[in-house]
Amino acid sequence: MSVNLEDARRVTTAAEAFATEIGQPMNIAVVDAGGNLVSHVRQDDAWIGSVKISISKAWTSRAFNISTKDLGDNAQPTQQFFGIHTTNDGNVAIFAGGIPLVRDGVVVGAIGVSGGSGEQDHSVAEAGAAAL
Amino acid sequence: MSVNLEDARRVTTAAEAFATEIGQPMNIAVVDAGGNLVSHVRQDDAWIGSVKISISKAWTSRAFNISTKDLGDNAQPTQQFFGIHTTNDGNVAIFAGGIPLVRDGVVVGAIGVSGGSGEQDHSVAEAGAAAL
Amino acid sequence: MSVNLEDARRVTTAAEAFATEIGQPMNIAVVDAGGNLVSHVRQDDAWIGSVKISISKAWTSRAFNISTKDLGDNAQPTQQFFGIHTTNDGNVAIFAGGIPLVRDGVVVGAIGVSGGSGEQDHSVAEAGAAAL
Amino acid sequence: MSVNLEDARRVTTAAEAFATEIGQPMNIAVVDAGGNLVSHVRQDDAWIGSVKISISKAWTSRAFNISTKDLGDNAQPTQQFFGIHTTNDGNVAIFAGGIPLVRDGVVVGAIGVSGGSGEQDHSVAEAGAAAL
Repeated sequence: MSVNLEDARRVTTAAEAFATEIGQPMNIAVVDAGGNLVSHVRQDDAWIGSVKISISKAWTSRAFNISTKDLGDNAQPTQQFFGIHTTNDGNVAIFAGGIPLVRDGVVVGAIGVSGGSGEQDHSVAEAGAAAL
Repeated sequence: MSVNLEDARRVTTAAEAFATEIGQPMNIAVVDAGGNLVSHVRQDDAWIGSVKISISKAWTSRAFNISTKDLGDNAQPTQQFFGIHTTNDGNVAIFAGGIPLVRDGVVVGAIGVSGGSGEQDHSVAEAGAAAL
Repeated sequence: MSVNLEDARRVTTAAEAFATEIGQPMNIAVVDAGGNLVSHVRQDDAWIGSVKISISKAWTSRAFNISTKDLGDNAQPTQQFFGIHTTNDGNVAIFAGGIPLVRDGVVVGAIGVSGGSGEQDHSVAEAGAAAL
Repeated sequence: MSVNLEDARRVTTAAEAFATEIGQPMNIAVVDAGGNLVSHVRQDDAWIGSVKISISKAWTSRAFNISTKDLGDNAQPTQQFFGIHTTNDGNVAIFAGGIPLVRDGVVVGAIGVSGGSGEQDHSVAEAGAAAL
C-alpha cells in the first residue's frame, strides 16, 4: 500500500522529463506512505537550497494528505492553519510543489519538487504524480 | 494539583468519542501542569503530520494558560504576539486545537488536538476538556 | 501491515501491567511501520525526562529493525556503529528499552519503554511486545 | 570538477547492483564537491533510519576528504578527533559506509551507504565509487 523504489523512479522520471521540457532544473523527492524518503534527485544546475525543500514538500504532502499549494492557502495570516510552517521542527512546507501520490483512492506517498517558481514546481510535481 | 494518567485517559476518551462522531480521525495529546506529555493517541488514518502538532498545541495551552485559538488571534501580523510561533524551539502552536484543563479555577494541564479543520480540532478539544 | 491504535493499546496495556507488577512507573510509546507515533502514556510518577526517550527508543527499533539493547552493543566505542546515536537529529537511542513489533515475520512497528533501569525497561517492552 | 547527476546515477547503479548481489538492501546517497546532495535512493526494505545516515556519510566523506571508516578510527575515545560526531549539527558520521569520489586525484564528491553491517556498507560504497 506504499510506493516502492520502482514507483518512485517512474514518478521521478516523468517529473524530470517535464522539468527538462520547460527548461527549469529541479530537485525531485519522493516519500513513502510513512513519510520516509524513497528517492531524491537534483538535476544539474538546480538550486542547492532546494534539496531540503523538495524533501519537506514531499513529507508535508503525505503528512497532511494535501498539496502544499492548498495547504499554503490555509496557512496565510488570519487563515486557520497560520503558523503550521514552524511546527514539526520546521519540516512543513507551505508553498507549491508537493502533491500526494494516490492509488485506488489511498495516499501511498508524495512527491516534492523545488527549483523554480511555485507554478513551475507544482506543474512538475503534477507531471510526476500522473505517472504513478 | 496536576492531571494524572487517569485524568488524561478520561479526557482523551471523550475527545476520541467526539472525533469519531464527527467522522474526523484525530491526534489527541494531554500534558500535565508542568507542560510534560502524559499521553498521546493517533486514531487510525489521522494525519502523521499532526502527531507533533497535537503535542505542541497541548504544551502551548498550558505554557500560556490560553487556548491556541485565542493565542492565534494575538499572534497574527501586526498583533501583540506576532512571532511567538518561532520561540521555544518552534514548539508554540498558534492555531485552534489546544485548550487548558482547569480544575477549581486552576490550570492543571492541557489538551491538544490536531487532524482536521481548526474548528473541528477546537471542538474535539472542548469535548475532551469538558470530561475533566 | 502496520500496527493500528487498537494494537498499540493492547501492547501498552500489557506493558503497563508489567511495569505496575515490578513497581516501576514507565513511559511507554508505540510507533507504526513508518516510524510514526501511534500512542504514548506516562504512568504517574514516571520520569518526565523519559517521555522523549521512550519515543526515541520505539522509533529507533523500527528504524533499524532491532532492539535498542542489541543496537547498543554495536554502538559502543570501537564497535561498528559507534557514533550512530548522534545521527538522525539525535533521535537514535542506543540503550535498552526498544523492541520491534513483529507479525508474521514482518516488523509492523515498535515499542519503546523508559523509566527504570535498562533491564527493567527491556523487560517491560518485552511484556508489551508479547501482547501483539 | 564536480560530479553531476549522470555521474551520481552511474555510481548509484553500481552500488545498487552490489547491494542486491550480497542480498542487503541499502540507502545510497551521493553528494557533489560542495557537499550538497545530488541523489538518494532507498532500496525496498532498507532501514528507514538509514536515510539520513547515508546522506551524513556522503557529506562527511566530502567534508573531510576521507572515508568515514578511516575517520572513525580517529574518532574513538582517546583518539585525536574524538567528539567530531557531535559537530556540524550532528551531521558527521564516524562509522563505515562513506567514501570520497575521486577524479584525476581530486575529490569531486562522495558516496554514502547505510543499511547493513559496517563492512557491508563500506563494500557497497566501494563498488559505487569504482564506477565513477
